[in-house]
Amino acid sequence: MPPLRLDPDRLLPSDTATRDIARAIHAATEAAPIVSPHGHVDARLLAEDVPFTDPTSLLISPDHYVTRLLHADGVPLDTLGVGEPLGDETARRRAWRALCSRWEMLAGTVVRTWLEHQLVELFGVEDVPNAGNADDSYDRIAARLAGDDFRPRALWERFGIDVLATTDDPCDDLTAHAVLDADPTWTGRVVPTFRPDRYLEPVRADWPGLVQRIGTAADVDTSTYDGFVVALETRRRFFIDHGATATDHSHADLESEPLSHADAFRIHADALRGEATAAEMVAYRRHLFAEMARMSCDDGLVMMVHPGIVRNHHRPTFERFGQDTGHDLPRRIDFVEPLRPLLERYGTHPGFHLVLFTVDPTAWAREIAPLAGFYPSVYAGVPWWFGDSPAGMERFWDGIVDQIGFTRTSGFIDDTRAYLSIPTRHDVARRIEAGVLARLVVAGRIDVEEATRIAGWLVGVQPRAVFKL
Amino acid sequence: MPPLRLDPDRLLPSDTATRDIARAIHAATEAAPIVSPHGHVDARLLAEDVPFTDPTSLLISPDHYVTRLLHADGVPLDTLGVGEPLGDETARRRAWRALCSRWEMLAGTVVRTWLEHQLVELFGVEDVPNAGNADDSYDRIAARLAGDDFRPRALWERFGIDVLATTDDPCDDLTAHAVLDADPTWTGRVVPTFRPDRYLEPVRADWPGLVQRIGTAADVDTSTYDGFVVALETRRRFFIDHGATATDHSHADLESEPLSHADAFRIHADALRGEATAAEMVAYRRHLFAEMARMSCDDGLVMMVHPGIVRNHHRPTFERFGQDTGHDLPRRIDFVEPLRPLLERYGTHPGFHLVLFTVDPTAWAREIAPLAGFYPSVYAGVPWWFGDSPAGMERFWDGIVDQIGFTRTSGFIDDTRAYLSIPTRHDVARRIEAGVLARLVVAGRIDVEEATRIAGWLVGVQPRAVFKL
Amino acid sequence: MPPLRLDPDRLLPSDTATRDIARAIHAATEAAPIVSPHGHVDARLLAEDVPFTDPTSLLISPDHYVTRLLHADGVPLDTLGVGEPLGDETARRRAWRALCSRWEMLAGTVVRTWLEHQLVELFGVEDVPNAGNADDSYDRIAARLAGDDFRPRALWERFGIDVLATTDDPCDDLTAHAVLDADPTWTGRVVPTFRPDRYLEPVRADWPGLVQRIGTAADVDTSTYDGFVVALETRRRFFIDHGATATDHSHADLESEPLSHADAFRIHADALRGEATAAEMVAYRRHLFAEMARMSCDDGLVMMVHPGIVRNHHRPTFERFGQDTGHDLPRRIDFVEPLRPLLERYGTHPGFHLVLFTVDPTAWAREIAPLAGFYPSVYAGVPWWFGDSPAGMERFWDGIVDQIGFTRTSGFIDDTRAYLSIPTRHDVARRIEAGVLARLVVAGRIDVEEATRIAGWLVGVQPRAVFKL
Repeated sequence: MPPLRLDPDRLLPSDTATRDIARAIHAATEAAPIVSPHGHVDARLLAEDVPFTDPTSLLISPDHYVTRLLHADGVPLDTLGVGEPLGDETARRRAWRALCSRWEMLAGTVVRTWLEHQLVELFGVEDVPNAGNADDSYDRIAARLAGDDFRPRALWERFGIDVLATTDDPCDDLTAHAVLDADPTWTGRVVPTFRPDRYLEPVRADWPGLVQRIGTAADVDTSTYDGFVVALETRRRFFIDHGATATDHSHADLESEPLSHADAFRIHADALRGEATAAEMVAYRRHLFAEMARMSCDDGLVMMVHPGIVRNHHRPTFERFGQDTGHDLPRRIDFVEPLRPLLERYGTHPGFHLVLFTVDPTAWAREIAPLAGFYPSVYAGVPWWFGDSPAGMERFWDGIVDQIGFTRTSGFIDDTRAYLSIPTRHDVARRIEAGVLARLVVAGRIDVEEATRIAGWLVGVQPRAVFKL
Repeated sequence: MPPLRLDPDRLLPSDTATRDIARAIHAATEAAPIVSPHGHVDARLLAEDVPFTDPTSLLISPDHYVTRLLHADGVPLDTLGVGEPLGDETARRRAWRALCSRWEMLAGTVVRTWLEHQLVELFGVEDVPNAGNADDSYDRIAARLAGDDFRPRALWERFGIDVLATTDDPCDDLTAHAVLDADPTWTGRVVPTFRPDRYLEPVRADWPGLVQRIGTAADVDTSTYDGFVVALETRRRFFIDHGATATDHSHADLESEPLSHADAFRIHADALRGEATAAEMVAYRRHLFAEMARMSCDDGLVMMVHPGIVRNHHRPTFERFGQDTGHDLPRRIDFVEPLRPLLERYGTHPGFHLVLFTVDPTAWAREIAPLAGFYPSVYAGVPWWFGDSPAGMERFWDGIVDQIGFTRTSGFIDDTRAYLSIPTRHDVARRIEAGVLARLVVAGRIDVEEATRIAGWLVGVQPRAVFKL
Repeated sequence: MPPLRLDPDRLLPSDTATRDIARAIHAATEAAPIVSPHGHVDARLLAEDVPFTDPTSLLISPDHYVTRLLHADGVPLDTLGVGEPLGDETARRRAWRALCSRWEMLAGTVVRTWLEHQLVELFGVEDVPNAGNADDSYDRIAARLAGDDFRPRALWERFGIDVLATTDDPCDDLTAHAVLDADPTWTGRVVPTFRPDRYLEPVRADWPGLVQRIGTAADVDTSTYDGFVVALETRRRFFIDHGATATDHSHADLESEPLSHADAFRIHADALRGEATAAEMVAYRRHLFAEMARMSCDDGLVMMVHPGIVRNHHRPTFERFGQDTGHDLPRRIDFVEPLRPLLERYGTHPGFHLVLFTVDPTAWAREIAPLAGFYPSVYAGVPWWFGDSPAGMERFWDGIVDQIGFTRTSGFIDDTRAYLSIPTRHDVARRIEAGVLARLVVAGRIDVEEATRIAGWLVGVQPRAVFKL
């Protein structure tokens, strides 16, 4: 049985000279604290500090990166604890074995890279997983998880996390964040992020209820457009008061043409009554998207956008298992023309930050870098979902560095729901960045001292500055 | 005159350490049998086993990869035997000289890589081709072709072909396949593929005739929609009875919204009478495309699709020389949204296999890998037409491996009309795959034993499993 | 303070074996004369041979590649001399300091690569720029600029320019070109290029005036379509008489469907009276675009196109500073289908040359190479704007070589407004080309002699042939 090990030079460039330089650059960031400006870890995890229970419900069930690949290989989602938790340990062990027995199927994927890192570094698993040793590794991991040093707050220290942003509903009372703030034994920093998508989508059947809900949360009458705007502003302020520095947006497109006040006022009322046309509702969403930029200019929240996702592609899976179950899929997306109305108004506003993420890798060289190379507000977001892998990151840097260098980029975001995968995701990014910088050194474009400085601020100064952390 | 030679390390990665590993991986697949699940060789070639006659009508005239490049360099297609065969040996020698004298023009192209391999390995040509030595190489090749060891069946043995799929009209009587099956002296496996495109395109002027034709072939009245469906099912069954395992589809887009039975019934009848609107005919084609998936769920035929081709771009050339004469050209194509109706219905059907090819390389990372990483039915088809080259293959693997590894890919298909180019095309693919795997080894992501295993099943187990061979 | 130096191996491949070969290939082109078939240097610069004044108005103010990046980093355009020249030396020194103090911000960009080359090779600047040494480098450069050996004609000799194409309005009297032609002390070759874009855009408010203007220039009544065509032909002839070999086109798309003569005639008249519809005006522009191809078949002018630019994206900047101020931005663009009508008519016309540039890198592999691999008229234009960098050039070659080799490409164009950046831009291209060729050698696809030959004609024979220079 071959041993499971982490190559100390993993993911660094292959030729010896470049690898030596990359290794030196990487040494300077390897142990740097983690800044995580965007992700989906629940703040309650840290507020409550409840121990994790078992490998399956920790590493498989909640991680759609893992479950989707197993599903593609024929494993039914319900046997993996998707939708509802697995009922007993037998089922959990079966799920764990399903993963372990497919280790070779995962060869080459970043999912295996992440899991391997966690198995070795956190759990001391010594053998390459397979069906035969699945129970052993299950037991070993479960035993570790029982220790106090594996509770979420202890792992925070171990991971060296400096600041972590969560993603939250505008009506969330942010209790967990408040609990952490008020806890004298807790010294970490966990900030919320304002994620208003569904409140900006009049086309949703539940939109009238959501409008009322945010009205209640903000204590404002949202039956009129003006009230709705005040409610959104109020809730943003509430988030700011709880430490938020950013908002997060994902719609079908980036069109951003504002409406006149009269039209917005009218459509708001019509949409609440179910009398707006489909075109009006789309136009209103685009208006509200531009309004978010206007509010960011006023209140300083950084605006993150990551468009181009087709949500819940496979209806039967959605109906049975709900959302975020592995079949949100990318499509082509334009940036330059749709964002023109927004950027014309706010693109040079002092202090406005607009971070553009994409699931369409062709946008980096063609649209995002050109935008970030002119507008002081625009930052090129690093690879996200489907692109957050070694090859994806290299495509990103290859597409943008020549045009805009490093200072117009966001710094790494891990975007993860899987708390334990945070260190490995940052590890992958730092290694790839070391390689990118080393190649520039070998190409005679920067020297190794400058490369090392850049690597350092890419993991600290830069994300703090871009996300105002 | 420089010698023509094949570098034993050709197409392997450049840096020494990675190349050494790639060479070792490649050694394990270099001599493996050839599985060819998709191509355009005519089964009669093997059924009749007629000797090839001369270099030009073997290597130039039928290969639009070659003729299009010569045409771009100013050589008229009629002097190359496109459209109709060249009348005499003088003309054939002139065409051969046209190719040889443009050897340097072909520098860097995969066409030269393929030709070089054939000239050296099959024909023992010793000098780099040029105008001066064209007659010599013509003579040498013609002499070899006269030998019994160069007849199609002998080459099959020499090439180590294990199974070859042809591409056939649904009304084809598959006589050639039957002849091979019935021949006790023939031990190879040649299977037909059901290619119904034109029967599914009501917009074609000849569609009513085609509908009648398939009715005759299936002995079914196809004047109604229901009869037409039965005819298609009947012919698929006929193909299955002759060894077919797959169907092959190429339309302008991948839209797949089914119609109600009533609408399909009505449009079928209207279209036969020439009374359907253009929009109805397109909607009906999309319905029939979804029907093909439905039938695949029923009868098990693997469904291959390769959309996004603009056919017969240069009308004057089409009018003079016919189709497949080098001016079918790619365009942008979407996968995720158009395939949603089809995948919603059949995407998780047990045993359904949908292999997605593309001529738009941007689709691999953005759409095809994400689809294949969720749907058990979807496989990422390897680079095809315009992408079936070293750089094209590296783009493919670079775009998909991090997301889905190797098991969600189709295995290599050569897609060739040029029988003699089969070995070199597989040789190129195996070398690139060895390099891709070697880079993963050097990056510490897999070890060399696993890489070698993967290389092995990529050329055997995988295409057999995906195409049910 | 680290010294500023140029690595003699800069931009060559990283692994030792490939780099050694690339170095040998590059040695053969390093000192070759410069052929510059497309750019934006003003012919008056050479006709008048006026000395340059200071670093800022030479290297910053007119170069939107530089000013846009400084703007993105928060430097107001008016402090950089954009729009109107900086009033005094204090302001110019401040602008120069703004650049020098952002040297690290430019790390990794091709802008820094270009500037570095100029600072070292032309001005002997010895230290890496920063705020502290900005005045020193300003003084050093200003002193050099005062010398006769830094006047434009002297630099022409020093740069080794063989031929330079300018870009000119169809009504330009080409006096500067005539002055150069008539000057017995001037032995260089500066040819004009016919750039008719705005005359072909009836949608512009100033179009009726432009039509009248070209009528005056051509001494033809352009109130009718027929007269307008004659005027365009007359001005093309005037350009040819002054040495022009090419025309240059950039519209929103490449649609090229011709109108009937009757429709063109009618829309021309209606558009002049402001009575044409928006759709008619677009259709007429597309017709005129096809007409340009028709005229090229008649008069032999090479047709260059570079579509897909969204002009003046940020209206407030445009209103204050005018055009070409750094916010023209790329978007997606199709080639295969829009060009079909044009290529159907003229694509195989003997002597017609159509050079296709793109700001959408996805078009190279998908559409431009496939077109250039069939149509004798079509050449793949090298990376242009936003792509004219090391990574951009590698994407280009990676996207096209396997399909069409080298002979179907345009040869390098620098496309620059910055006269002093011509040598460094060609230097970058030659180094990348040497690397591309070296990789083919290491991959066993060409040998080093052939690679060296190809490198040679890529910088001389090829652009001369494609642009008929």
